[in-house]
Amino acid sequence: MTDSSIPLSDAHESFLRDFDTMGDFGATGHGGVDRQAASDADNEQRRWFQGLLEGHGFTVEYDRIGNQFGLLELVPGAPYVLIGSHMDSQPTAGKYDGAYGVLAAAHAAFRIADDAVSGGVDGARYNVAVVNWFNEEGSRFVPSMMGSSVYTGVLPLEDALAVRDKAGISVQQALRPTGFLGEGNGPVAALCAEIHIEQGRLLENAGTTIGLVTATWAASKYRVVVKGEQAHSGATVMEDRKDALYGASLLVVFARELTDRFPGKLHTAVGQLDVYPNSPVVVASEVTLLLDLRSDDEQLLAEANALLDARFAEIEAKARVEIERTLSHSWDVNPYQPAGVELARSVAEELGLSNDEIMTVAGHDSTNMKELVPTVMLFVPSVDGISHNEGEYTKPADLVAGLDVLTEVVRRLVRGELT
Amino acid sequence: MTDSSIPLSDAHESFLRDFDTMGDFGATGHGGVDRQAASDADNEQRRWFQGLLEGHGFTVEYDRIGNQFGLLELVPGAPYVLIGSHMDSQPTAGKYDGAYGVLAAAHAAFRIADDAVSGGVDGARYNVAVVNWFNEEGSRFVPSMMGSSVYTGVLPLEDALAVRDKAGISVQQALRPTGFLGEGNGPVAALCAEIHIEQGRLLENAGTTIGLVTATWAASKYRVVVKGEQAHSGATVMEDRKDALYGASLLVVFARELTDRFPGKLHTAVGQLDVYPNSPVVVASEVTLLLDLRSDDEQLLAEANALLDARFAEIEAKARVEIERTLSHSWDVNPYQPAGVELARSVAEELGLSNDEIMTVAGHDSTNMKELVPTVMLFVPSVDGISHNEGEYTKPADLVAGLDVLTEVVRRLVRGELT
Repeated sequence: MTDSSIPLSDAHESFLRDFDTMGDFGATGHGGVDRQAASDADNEQRRWFQGLLEGHGFTVEYDRIGNQFGLLELVPGAPYVLIGSHMDSQPTAGKYDGAYGVLAAAHAAFRIADDAVSGGVDGARYNVAVVNWFNEEGSRFVPSMMGSSVYTGVLPLEDALAVRDKAGISVQQALRPTGFLGEGNGPVAALCAEIHIEQGRLLENAGTTIGLVTATWAASKYRVVVKGEQAHSGATVMEDRKDALYGASLLVVFARELTDRFPGKLHTAVGQLDVYPNSPVVVASEVTLLLDLRSDDEQLLAEANALLDARFAEIEAKARVEIERTLSHSWDVNPYQPAGVELARSVAEELGLSNDEIMTVAGHDSTNMKELVPTVMLFVPSVDGISHNEGEYTKPADLVAGLDVLTEVVRRLVRGELT
Repeated sequence: MTDSSIPLSDAHESFLRDFDTMGDFGATGHGGVDRQAASDADNEQRRWFQGLLEGHGFTVEYDRIGNQFGLLELVPGAPYVLIGSHMDSQPTAGKYDGAYGVLAAAHAAFRIADDAVSGGVDGARYNVAVVNWFNEEGSRFVPSMMGSSVYTGVLPLEDALAVRDKAGISVQQALRPTGFLGEGNGPVAALCAEIHIEQGRLLENAGTTIGLVTATWAASKYRVVVKGEQAHSGATVMEDRKDALYGASLLVVFARELTDRFPGKLHTAVGQLDVYPNSPVVVASEVTLLLDLRSDDEQLLAEANALLDARFAEIEAKARVEIERTLSHSWDVNPYQPAGVELARSVAEELGLSNDEIMTVAGHDSTNMKELVPTVMLFVPSVDGISHNEGEYTKPADLVAGLDVLTEVVRRLVRGELT
């Protein structure tokens, strides 16, 4: 682990200065940021980032879903090592999530560009593209990981452009005036790497600096609509009520308490819930909520889903409501290429940084990319595991340690060590 | 009870025609209406109602909170018998709630105007004012019963005008362009009467046509803020979470199930609940909800409040949240003047209509008025007790029976029988 008493290199200081600047875009005044996809703050930051990339001699281009690419050509006509993350954020979020990975990718690429200038990129087989994926967070426009889903062909472009936010503005309408809606499909990737904060506290608890991500947890994500009937919330006799919010609340409580049966092995959440008509004196007729279950064990996840199924029927009877459930996304435990994990391990070892294998509970753009090309995913520690919160924090020493690992990983990918 | 096989009088038919017309303003297409306070539909209906009143020779005026009055002068300079209800509605509501009472008041007043023309208002001591109270429902602008609260001095005018809807528009801003913001305090009331649908099913179950309202249920209304902490809804370890929505859901479930301990004697509700930041991948940091408890027994209500208090503390510990609770309104069991109940009973008896005493669970504008002047409150049956729902229905025979009772009650009030 890089000790904070060790003086930082010029490259590290330059990185930390740029990272400080990034936190100014959409700053909340409480240490966090609010930079939802295609918001003014997101747009301003993208313009700043374009200037940073161009200042280092990179060519900047955008694809048809607004992914931002900074291209460094080492081998004319060759495909790219695609490295980056996302700069959009949740509302009132932390400044590390995504943004760290984009800037680390840019600075890793800057070093490789410097290598090239000094004639040091021997045996390069690929070019380098820094990427800032559009709308990874999915808070304004659902689904999340939108830009990388379109890039990898998981989500049709037309579907993504047609998605509307709560104000009725489509992705296309939001992007068109920004100049970030390009015409092509972006650079062709041969390999991919991403670095991200852990957003948990396994690394911190173990005193480990570099997480070598081996796989994603399995997940089931549901859109649930609970249907009751409007009634006067004062006058209506209790046993006549079909209260959609009571039904939804029984479900929220059950989903949370289900995790007690599988300690450490099951995460569940309801983060979004909307009530209709949401009036103080009307029993709710409809509640829509998004529910997800995640586990590192597919068998266990199937068991949790079965328990949930049984509970749905009980809640329908108890609250006199109807529940409609749609499985909006689901995936099994999904490995990253083991050779990429080994490559990252050898880099961390060489740099003398503590490291260990880890799984990711959250989805990342690299989750999409690993289905397309060999992909290396790295984590650095999150203090207290705090994330999606203005208090999100990663120590500067860990930020620059991650940058060093990513840089060396990308050097090796450029040389074709993983292909 | 008026039998539907008995032919309706011209006055009844005229009333039902006008009532049909009223249902067109803000019609939802499913038998209901959406006419929130100072919405276009509410404004259009008010203009139509002004024309109806003026067509019958009434003078129409507005007070400083937008209450609409139609004045019939029988005794120059005398105070008024104030009769009416409200024409605003919940979103996707029924067409009877409030609107019936305003139109019944207007038609009762029209008959008295006809009496006057034919020289039949012997011994009149008071004038008659029909009132359409502003914003009884309180769904767009909180609190409910706004117009009558300002009229009776319970709510300061300035506070009411400053209330904003979710779009940030104040009552003053919403009312100013409509022409419904007057300068005075409205006519001086000496007496009051209101008729309303029951919104429960006691009258229907008993086969009773006219409810003689003796008192309001006691109520405690709370604004509750549950405070947790934002976190990543996937990655954050379950035991680290401070999930405001889990805490709020525990509360919604408890409030509902508390009523099982007091069958028929306690009504509770959470109709409005807002989640922040309400994103699919963020654990909610704050949930705001409105909770109310109502009972016809003050002792029992105190006991329910004590149980709720104890549960608040348990939920704070269990969900690792903080709960802030503000008692926004509360009232004891609150009687209408017994002499008014007797007067209404004698009218119903004279007209040969079945009648019985009943309490009101819901608040009404007359709840405010009875604190100021002697007030008569009448109910007609709601089919299946359905209310605040597009399926709200009262049989035409019951509507006109109520109109007849109200008319005769007002005649007696005008003659000073209650003072």
